[in-house]
Amino acid sequence: MRLLEERIRREALVVLPDVLRVDMFLNHLIDAELLDEIGAEFARIFADEVGRITKILTVEASGIAIACAAARHFGVPVLFAKKGAGNKTLDKDVYCSSVFSFTKEAVSTVSVARRFLRPGERVLVIDDFLANGAAARGLLDIIDQADAELAGIGIVIEKGFQPGGTVLRAQGVRVESLALIKSMSEGRVTFAESEAALAL
Amino acid sequence: MRLLEERIRREALVVLPDVLRVDMFLNHLIDAELLDEIGAEFARIFADEVGRITKILTVEASGIAIACAAARHFGVPVLFAKKGAGNKTLDKDVYCSSVFSFTKEAVSTVSVARRFLRPGERVLVIDDFLANGAAARGLLDIIDQADAELAGIGIVIEKGFQPGGTVLRAQGVRVESLALIKSMSEGRVTFAESEAALAL
Repeated sequence: MRLLEERIRREALVVLPDVLRVDMFLNHLIDAELLDEIGAEFARIFADEVGRITKILTVEASGIAIACAAARHFGVPVLFAKKGAGNKTLDKDVYCSSVFSFTKEAVSTVSVARRFLRPGERVLVIDDFLANGAAARGLLDIIDQADAELAGIGIVIEKGFQPGGTVLRAQGVRVESLALIKSMSEGRVTFAESEAALAL
Repeated sequence: MRLLEERIRREALVVLPDVLRVDMFLNHLIDAELLDEIGAEFARIFADEVGRITKILTVEASGIAIACAAARHFGVPVLFAKKGAGNKTLDKDVYCSSVFSFTKEAVSTVSVARRFLRPGERVLVIDDFLANGAAARGLLDIIDQADAELAGIGIVIEKGFQPGGTVLRAQGVRVESLALIKSMSEGRVTFAESEAALAL
């Protein structure tokens, strides 16, 4: 997605060899216009799933805005997995999965109320980043537990030099990324399919 | 907002004398269509602020979807305050405030990167619930620290029998709620301005 790649190239910061900060337009400050374009792009890529999927699944917090922007186009609800031990407003009857966060360097639990994900539902997973694939695997585990069906995974930014996407695709999962980063060496972002363009 | 009140009456669950569960359409499963209507309604109520506000401020996680739905109509970015001690992708240079969560029964920190909220900005605060006003006060404190200006607070569901809204309005803050609940006694939700309608 050209618009997104340009935004990343212009504003995103490589703060550690494997950490890209996009908090200036995606996951702290959110550019509402870009968000709309992202939602529309997911609908274009997964056009064959419009009318088929019953839910979009994401994980709090930074996946929520993106999932909702996509959901408008699919006409389905968003279900966001909650992190942590829960509180008294959350259902007790939940599907849980453990997720290791490489950015927070800690294991956390993600959970979804059972009554909101039923057997036979067809689910599109949406998230902001795909790196090691830990969060995605947690959501896939929950879809599995629910005997629901995975339509695919839509990712805004995939760090292609980390193994998450490769492993998931090898397992037959449909993974679609709007921006696929090939390398972030020396603080410079290189996209997988537009190296020629970047060299201009 | 009639549509929202009907939805609350039909689906929401009073699970404790002061706890209303709306996770079936607002803060776990999110109805994308209702979300759009909520965003449009905030734009109608705060129509005088379109073109004046520079940012919508909310707090993760359940405020994000609502704030983004509103932001489309105002044409401004959303800034969401992060909870907790942060991680290595977040700015170190932040405004912080402490917030007591009555649902989680714990104090947490909310923070916003300084570079995303500048002196003189005009900010609309959006959140899902207003009860004791703790989260709202945390966000107002951050706006204060930034020498920014508060346009008002837009709330989806205000629990009018708890003191948050009353205290904020007494301080001269413009608080607008889409659904104002007067009482939840005996598990029954009564709205402040539509009692007659509810008795039908």
